[in-house]
Amino acid sequence: MRSTTGWQAEGTTKLREVQIPRRDLRRDDIAVRVDHCGVCHTDLHAVRGHKGDDLLVPGHEFTGVVIETGPDVTAFRAGDPVAVGNIVDSCGVCSMCVAGQENYCREFPVLTYGGTDRHDGTTTLGGFSREYVVREKFAYPLPPGLDPAAAAPLMCAGITVWEPLRALGVGPGMRVAVAGLGGLGHLAVKIAAAMGAEVSVVSRSADRASDAMRLGARDVVVSTDPDSTAASRDRFDVLIDTIPVPHDISPYLSLVAMDGTLSQVGHLGTMTVETMDLLLGRKKLTSSGSGGLAATAEMLEFCAAHGITADVEVLPSARVTEALDRLERGDVRYRFVLDLSDLD
Amino acid sequence: MRSTTGWQAEGTTKLREVQIPRRDLRRDDIAVRVDHCGVCHTDLHAVRGHKGDDLLVPGHEFTGVVIETGPDVTAFRAGDPVAVGNIVDSCGVCSMCVAGQENYCREFPVLTYGGTDRHDGTTTLGGFSREYVVREKFAYPLPPGLDPAAAAPLMCAGITVWEPLRALGVGPGMRVAVAGLGGLGHLAVKIAAAMGAEVSVVSRSADRASDAMRLGARDVVVSTDPDSTAASRDRFDVLIDTIPVPHDISPYLSLVAMDGTLSQVGHLGTMTVETMDLLLGRKKLTSSGSGGLAATAEMLEFCAAHGITADVEVLPSARVTEALDRLERGDVRYRFVLDLSDLD
Repeated sequence: MRSTTGWQAEGTTKLREVQIPRRDLRRDDIAVRVDHCGVCHTDLHAVRGHKGDDLLVPGHEFTGVVIETGPDVTAFRAGDPVAVGNIVDSCGVCSMCVAGQENYCREFPVLTYGGTDRHDGTTTLGGFSREYVVREKFAYPLPPGLDPAAAAPLMCAGITVWEPLRALGVGPGMRVAVAGLGGLGHLAVKIAAAMGAEVSVVSRSADRASDAMRLGARDVVVSTDPDSTAASRDRFDVLIDTIPVPHDISPYLSLVAMDGTLSQVGHLGTMTVETMDLLLGRKKLTSSGSGGLAATAEMLEFCAAHGITADVEVLPSARVTEALDRLERGDVRYRFVLDLSDLD
Repeated sequence: MRSTTGWQAEGTTKLREVQIPRRDLRRDDIAVRVDHCGVCHTDLHAVRGHKGDDLLVPGHEFTGVVIETGPDVTAFRAGDPVAVGNIVDSCGVCSMCVAGQENYCREFPVLTYGGTDRHDGTTTLGGFSREYVVREKFAYPLPPGLDPAAAAPLMCAGITVWEPLRALGVGPGMRVAVAGLGGLGHLAVKIAAAMGAEVSVVSRSADRASDAMRLGARDVVVSTDPDSTAASRDRFDVLIDTIPVPHDISPYLSLVAMDGTLSQVGHLGTMTVETMDLLLGRKKLTSSGSGGLAATAEMLEFCAAHGITADVEVLPSARVTEALDRLERGDVRYRFVLDLSDLD
């Protein structure tokens, strides 16, 4: 058994630096030195909902360098820059895996933390740590030209918005709205704009208008202003809803065009939908979660080709609690990334 | 002011034969002798929810004969067979009307009963009556070859399932499920099969299997049998949910394939959706309501070309209360149609 240093939840408000186990490399495993790991709302939810007896080390969007490879590994060598996202294994044989959608694996994909390893049954521990061991199949070469710190959030926030934008055929001439301008939302704006779409941001206030424009949006729809929302009624072919807390989707559905789609990727709980909000325009409601292996690789190539990374604030990992607290208050533009080198 | 005889709700359980007013013909109006009017779940809901002081004459899918025309009418002459559905006017200038989707008119289409006339502000009174006056634009020639009694339900039940089947591109090779085998459901099976799709019926029991096959289905998925639903998990590109009462859509979403769509057209209230039911397969939830003028005309031509009408039980209109009571119990295969000739 290997061991490394990581940040483990203590109760629901703090994380503590501890030694954590890592498995010895299997034949197709690589060991990754984690340099940068993004801080996602999922991490916040996990810590705030942490039961005392669970071993919880968050973190599921990270970049680093390969430090060791199992004997069957062919895609990586020690020294290669690498990226890992929120899933690290799947059954490989169900219809979803066969279709390249390991993220919807019918046995449920193994999550990067809080998942159950398919071989030894242990609980996976995440990327708020200095080393991670992962099947090479679920690691991605980090394309040259992408800053490793700013690229880390692509592996969860990025692929989470890439998946619906791609599945819904976003491209030139399409009108895309992004609701919520946080970690997911700001990447949705950048990616949709790079795909050629006409992008708008839907925000509770006009404060972020200049930021939205800088990211690639053409305008801002102010969700709290009835004149603003009325002017954009039935306007968008696609609306990506990245708002990470429970909210009424009815006002957002009103912005969706005839036969358009609202994709809910921010809050994954129970939704209440008025059928009439869908009916009056044959509008569609959908959701998706991260992406499969092929899509994730494609997303990284696209971002490298278009120079897209997250807008990040990098903090030493020792300030992880501060990062979670500020994320909870929405005080970040637009993603915290932990620098794990302080764990050496 | 003209006058005719109709069936007016008295309380929430009975209807009474009364004289009701009809407007004098406007320049683009036709007067229709109503021969046959289908009995829809909407009628049942309206009667059961009837407030004592409202004037309620149900009925919004009827066929008959033109008996008089306004001076500007060009599409009809006295003696023409005609069909009318659930909307009788719209603003004509909003984006939905311009797009030929009068059914989603942004000023809300004028419903055939319980609507508000756009000119005189009166409440519309429906087709459970011997005569109806309607703008010619919202009436359709009944194609030759369609039995007038069995064609009446096409005007609501038929167009209500035509709309999602058409919008979702149903055709050869597509796998379509129909949940609920009532007035809407049995027409959905016939129409989807005629479109070339592989059709299955989802029903609470296997009792209706032989009926489902006769209507054009290949098999029945028994929603109360876990083995049956498990065997059809992720199977259908399109699922038309015609169940007319509140129900949990989660088991039905499990039957929808990756990127497939569940269209809810049976119950139009508030829905509760688990985001994960959509997420694990990028499934879509949608709804729609009847159809626009062009779609309705197209549906009638399609049904005439394929010999599709409803399976009906025709009753004299004096038995309307019995029809509603039996509809409430699900005791009809598959649509009651009132014969209004007893009102002469």
